[in-house]
Parts: sequence; C-alpha cells; structure tokens
Amino acid sequence: MEEKIKDYLPTGYNNLENFFDEAYPADIADFLMLLDSDEKEYILKNKANISLIINIISYLDYENQNIVAKLMNEEKLSTILSRIYVDDAVDFLGSMPVGKVKKILNLMKEQKASELQSLLGYDYESAGGLMTTEYLAFYNDMTADMVLQKLRKISPGAEMIYYIYVISRKKELLGVLSVRQLLAAQPDENLKDLMTENVIKVGINLDQEEVAHVFAKYDLLAVPVVNKRNQLMGIITVDDAIDVIEDEATEDIYKMAATGDIHGGLLAAVKKRIPWLLILLVGDLLSGSVIKNFEESLQVVVALAFFIPVLMDMGGNVGTQSLTVVVRGLATGELHFANFWRHLWQEVKVGFVMAVILGSMLSLIAFFWQGNPLLGLIVGGSMFMTLLTAVTAGTSIPFIMEAFGADPAVAAGPFITTLIDISGLFIYFTMATILMEKLI
Amino acid sequence: MEEKIKDYLPTGYNNLENFFDEAYPADIADFLMLLDSDEKEYILKNKANISLIINIISYLDYENQNIVAKLMNEEKLSTILSRIYVDDAVDFLGSMPVGKVKKILNLMKEQKASELQSLLGYDYESAGGLMTTEYLAFYNDMTADMVLQKLRKISPGAEMIYYIYVISRKKELLGVLSVRQLLAAQPDENLKDLMTENVIKVGINLDQEEVAHVFAKYDLLAVPVVNKRNQLMGIITVDDAIDVIEDEATEDIYKMAATGDIHGGLLAAVKKRIPWLLILLVGDLLSGSVIKNFEESLQVVVALAFFIPVLMDMGGNVGTQSLTVVVRGLATGELHFANFWRHLWQEVKVGFVMAVILGSMLSLIAFFWQGNPLLGLIVGGSMFMTLLTAVTAGTSIPFIMEAFGADPAVAAGPFITTLIDISGLFIYFTMATILMEKLI
Repeated sequence: MEEKIKDYLPTGYNNLENFFDEAYPADIADFLMLLDSDEKEYILKNKANISLIINIISYLDYENQNIVAKLMNEEKLSTILSRIYVDDAVDFLGSMPVGKVKKILNLMKEQKASELQSLLGYDYESAGGLMTTEYLAFYNDMTADMVLQKLRKISPGAEMIYYIYVISRKKELLGVLSVRQLLAAQPDENLKDLMTENVIKVGINLDQEEVAHVFAKYDLLAVPVVNKRNQLMGIITVDDAIDVIEDEATEDIYKMAATGDIHGGLLAAVKKRIPWLLILLVGDLLSGSVIKNFEESLQVVVALAFFIPVLMDMGGNVGTQSLTVVVRGLATGELHFANFWRHLWQEVKVGFVMAVILGSMLSLIAFFWQGNPLLGLIVGGSMFMTLLTAVTAGTSIPFIMEAFGADPAVAAGPFITTLIDISGLFIYFTMATILMEKLI
Repeated sequence: MEEKIKDYLPTGYNNLENFFDEAYPADIADFLMLLDSDEKEYILKNKANISLIINIISYLDYENQNIVAKLMNEEKLSTILSRIYVDDAVDFLGSMPVGKVKKILNLMKEQKASELQSLLGYDYESAGGLMTTEYLAFYNDMTADMVLQKLRKISPGAEMIYYIYVISRKKELLGVLSVRQLLAAQPDENLKDLMTENVIKVGINLDQEEVAHVFAKYDLLAVPVVNKRNQLMGIITVDDAIDVIEDEATEDIYKMAATGDIHGGLLAAVKKRIPWLLILLVGDLLSGSVIKNFEESLQVVVALAFFIPVLMDMGGNVGTQSLTVVVRGLATGELHFANFWRHLWQEVKVGFVMAVILGSMLSLIAFFWQGNPLLGLIVGGSMFMTLLTAVTAGTSIPFIMEAFGADPAVAAGPFITTLIDISGLFIYFTMATILMEKLI
C-alpha cells in the first residue's frame, strides 16, 4: 500500500513520515484528498496520529472530514474538536451524523460543548454558521494600556487579534479599533475615545454569499456578527470569506452547466446530473415536434434541414452570452434591478449589430451553397430574428428569476438554449412555409 | 442633473452632499459606477473634491478609474497618487495612457515616483503587479522591544502591520512573525529566535491566479514576494487576493460562454463576442454539411429530422457537464494531471449509466411516436454513442489544453457543443444509412 501511495507524494519526499513532518498542513490535506478511499483509510489507521489530524482537519473538505469522522472513535474526535478553532470545530461536527455529535459533545467540557451546540444551531450557509466566538471584545471604559496588558497574556486561542471590538455591559457592539491604533495610543486613553463608531457589521442570519460580498467590497480582515439587538455574537474571518467566494463561484458555474460537483461516487454524480437532462430531453423533443409540424415543408425542401444546426446553435450561443453577463453581474453585485432596462437596451443594441452581421452572412452562404436566393432570405431572416429573441430572453430571464427569489444561475446554459431552439425552429419553419410557394 | 442622479442614491439619503459625507467609500464608489457617463462627469466636475476621490479611487474598477483620470489634470492626479497605498496607485496609473503617467511621475517626489515606476514594470497579472512595497521588515538581530517601539511610531502608511518580516542585511527573507507573537515575547528576545523560518512566499513572476490559490489554501492575511535571490521585494495583502479570486472566476465563466465582460460600450461588446460566434458559425455549418451528405437518407425518411435537436442538445449538455467539472476543478486546484485517468474513468462510468438510461428512453419514445422500431433503434443507439463520446471529449479536452499551456476555460461550452454536434450527427446518419434498407 505504501508503495502505491508514494506515487502521490510531492517531489522531494520519498516517504510518508518525512512528508508528514515537514510539509505545511494544507499540503498534507491536499495530498490526502487526492488518494483513493482505501489509501486514505490505510493512512488514517496506521500513519496519522492525532496531532497531525488536528493540524490538517480544517483544510479538508466536507467529504474527507466525514471519512476522518467515520474512522475515529468519539474519544479521539472530542480531543481533536477541543483543540481546533471553534468555527472549524463546528464545520467538522457538521460532517458527522447527529447521534455521533451528541456522544462527542457529552465527552467534552461543558462550556465548550454548549458553545459548539449553540453555533451548530445556525444555518450552515449564514453568517451565524460562518462565525467564530473567539474574538477580542473589551468594555468601552477600559484604557489602551489595560487592553495591551491583556493582549500580551492572551492565549493563541483567539483566531483574530487584529481588530478589537468595543462593547457595552449589555454586549452591544459600540465600535472597533485596530491593534495598530492601540499601539499608537496614549496608555491612559479610553477605548471609547479611540474606537471608530461606524462599524461595518453583518446580521446573524445574512446569507454567506452576502457576507462574502461585504468582505470583497470593504477590504476587511474580519467582520463582526450581531443579533437583532446589536449584541456581538461572533466574528467572521477573511479566510472563511475566501472559501465562500470560491465555493459560490463554483456553485454558479456548476448550476450554469446543470451539473453537480466533483466529489462523491458514480451514483451521486448520476443522481445530480440526470434530473436536469430529463427535463432538457422533454424540451428537445418539443423542438423535434416543431420540425414534425412542418413535415410537409421539409419533405418538399430537404435543404431546410441543413440549416437546423446553425440556427439552433447560434441562437443558444448568443443567448448564453447575454445570460452569462447578467448571472455573473448579479452574483458579484455589479448588476442590480435598477439597471435592468438600461442593461436590456444595451444588450438589444449589441444583439442587433450581431444579428445584422451574422444574418446577412448566413443569407449569402445559404444562397451560394444552395443557389436559391429565397432560401437565403429565409435562413438569414430567421437567424436575425432568432438572435434578437436570444439576447432578449438571455437578458430578461435571469433578472426575472432573481425578482422571484430564484437563483438565476439555474436558468442558465442548457435551459435558455432549449427555449431558444424551440422559438428559433418555429420562426424558421413558419417563415419557410409562408414563402413556400415561391421557394419551389 | 442632480434630480436625475437622486434616483440612484441609496435609501436614507436625499442629497449628494449628505451621502458623500456619511457613506462608506466603497458604497460611494458603487454608486458612481451605476451612473451614466454624463452623470459621472457632472459629479466628478462639480461635486467630488480631491479627498473624496482619494477615499474611493481604489474601489473603482479599471474603466471608472480611467474616467476619473481623464477628467482631472496631472497636478491633481499626482496629489491623489501620493496619498493612496502604493499598490492602489500602481493600479490607478495602469488605467492612464503612458504619456500622462510620465507627466504625473515628473510632478511627484522622486523617491515615490521611482518606486511607482519600478512597480509599473511588472506584469499586471503577476505577483509583482499585485504587491505593495509598504510592508514591515526588520533585521534578524533586533529585539522584540526595539520593534515594538518602532511600531508605535509608525505612520499608518504601512498597509499591513500584522505580519513582521525578518530580513538579512542583504534583504534576504529569513522569517516571519505575527504581532501577536511580538506582544507575547520577552522584550530582549531577538527576532531570529522568535520568527518562523518556514515562510510561505511567492516568486515575483508568479501568475495572479496561483497567488490567489496560495491565499485560499494556506489562510494567510499577507504573503511576501521574493525575487530569485530570495530578496524581499514586497507583500501582497489578502484584500487583493479576494479581488483576484472573484475576477478569475468571472473570467472563467465569461470564457466558458465565449463572451466578454459587462463594461465598455456597444462596439466593445460586439468586438469581444463576434469573433467567437464566427468560429462557431463555421462549426455549425460543418454540422449542416454532415446532414447534407446524407440528403438521400433524409429525403427517404423525413422523420430522421425530428430527432436532430434532441441528439444535438443532449450531446452538448452532457459534454458541457463533464467539461465544467474539469475546468472548475483545474481552476480551484481540486484536479491535477495526476488525476486524469482516474477522473476520466469516473466520467466514463457516469456517462455510461446516463447513456443507457437516456438512450433506451429515447428509443422507446421514437418507437411510439413514429411507430417504427428500427427508427427507435437508430435514434436510441446514436444517442448512446453520442453521450459516451460527449463525456470522453468533455473530460479529455480541457486536460489536453491545460497540458499544452492553453486556458481550458476557452475550450468550454459552445466549442465542445459544436464538436459533439458534428460527431453526433455523423453517428446518427451513418447508422440510419446503414440500416436504411430495413427502415423503409
């Protein structure tokens, strides 16, 4: 087994012990995630001691944390959990079945267990689910020197000591100051005179995507989380925001291709993909029925079939272009409802120019290829109309979905393509049938 | 004009002055970017003083920085540039024409100007292009107390004081320590005994996407940039890494839809999109020629045309699913070359199961719709083979592109779809022609 695993060791290491001793925890985690499940099992059972797991656990993804949890007993898991940051511990617990979580919490110190318990109550994808309770907060009547003395003694347990939050006796968030400001202050100055009152903060139920936007927008290292009464409940650190930004972009990309993620086995992958494909199959059969309804025209002029691919694909491509710009613009916050008409008008103009260019080109191609000017007119004209429909649908549909609270990324790629296929084929064959008499 | 602009003010503000006084700089920048160009011009000329611009300039995107640069004279611009962080100044200068940059640098203090000049020399999308020269570095023989005294006096000019870098007299990077470690240290301890020697650092020419991966992987607030001789050249801060992660995801999503970004006018948008469409048009015409080559078969059995949409679309959809998983996996670092065969095998298995389900469904549909079992066999069989081709091509092509140093995202969506269309139609009509005699 060890010989097999060796192939995956980064260059410069030729045995596991050496690698585990010297590499960064994040690299060890990456290496583990590359392996097959039997190889992982071998390592976790024979080679990984508890301190290694403590170092790498927060760098493993959900599926791999789950594998670790399965292979260890509750006692070991409670030791690991009590020695990592609270927010990482909550994530790790989230990968285990409820029964196991209960047993583990029973084995832990009461205070830590109840802290974890309360954090587990928040939605995984909300500010509450992202936050840690390891932050620094002091009352507003303390002096700079008092705080500095405390900082010197503090255990490395607090994940983020770079911002210091100032609270009232009722735990209300009053202000914030940086360690830099603290160091530059006079020793006897009160926190309330040093702090910035205009704190950027997030509500405990805010969606994680919105939380990530706050980080991206305001360039922060940490953001405080408050409840409805403005009481400080925790903080979210920038490293978690980075993970959310990556994950949300990945999620959008997968949704736009109607696919699932890279993890999980054969059945999981099929289960994620096939429902979308079945829906799309129905849509494509509708495209087919459009053609069937015009069977007569097709029988008379078989050449009409040659242009089916180009009409279908170009409509889909142009629609997807428009749609992609909107979906991504809405996700990064560059587009808002306020822009809808302005943006639609811009897309229609772009679409018009492209429709004129591509429509007239295709007209000429059809004419020279088939030697029939009327066929050229039909093909070029349908292309023109299909492309205009495509930009309009591609721009409007994601805005409409967002307005109804649906995720615009779901509307993407294949769905818009199928919709435009149906309307494009309908335009094409209707035009052909009307001009039929002259065509033959 | 002000009445018109009022519509865009966030709720709670009813006049510009009030908004500019109270809002966060990032929100003011967002507001400005929403406006039309004449509205922007009005504000920049009449309402925005220089300190407002200083506050918001780093939150504006490239296009809007360019607008600001156009509307201000060199003197004002040099004042702005001398009062913002060095890395932001370099970005701002990057939005101006070379002639203007020269004039501005001539107006600035020589030291600052030459610093900016040297940073401008790095590729915009490399570590050198992202870094700032405002960092804290001390020699390894200094004591904790000496450093703390210096920190107390330091101007807020250093963008990141949370890591302290330790260097030799030759400027070689020897280690790093956090302010937390410094505060906890004995006053007379030397930096060389406090520091961590195993520093995560990046080379000055590293691509920005790789730089962002380093942040995402190791959970850092800043990363030092070194040249080939391990001399400390600057640092990159996490806020810039977040922007890169968002930008790179956006870029990939746009590439996969063969489209450009949201900014710029009509012509810019057409110019970005139409080259791709022209290439795709050629591909689609090739699909059409496949049909033309089988004109005879089509003439005999017109019903063959009804299934063209479903074969084309489903092949494209399944290929795009496989491709999306690979493109995103390569981008986030979840997939590597080492995984190629393993991942291909997984995709082929997934594709096989889906091909069996969808192929047999379509067989039955074709049979019942047209009452012809042979047609059912042709349609279902081609679907099966097309889907297997689709997963294989969708998985392999991005890996191959990456191997040749090309960006796999470019291969995506429409290109793979067109390729699979051609092969799918070829499979379909070949099968139909071979079985033709029995079909009629």
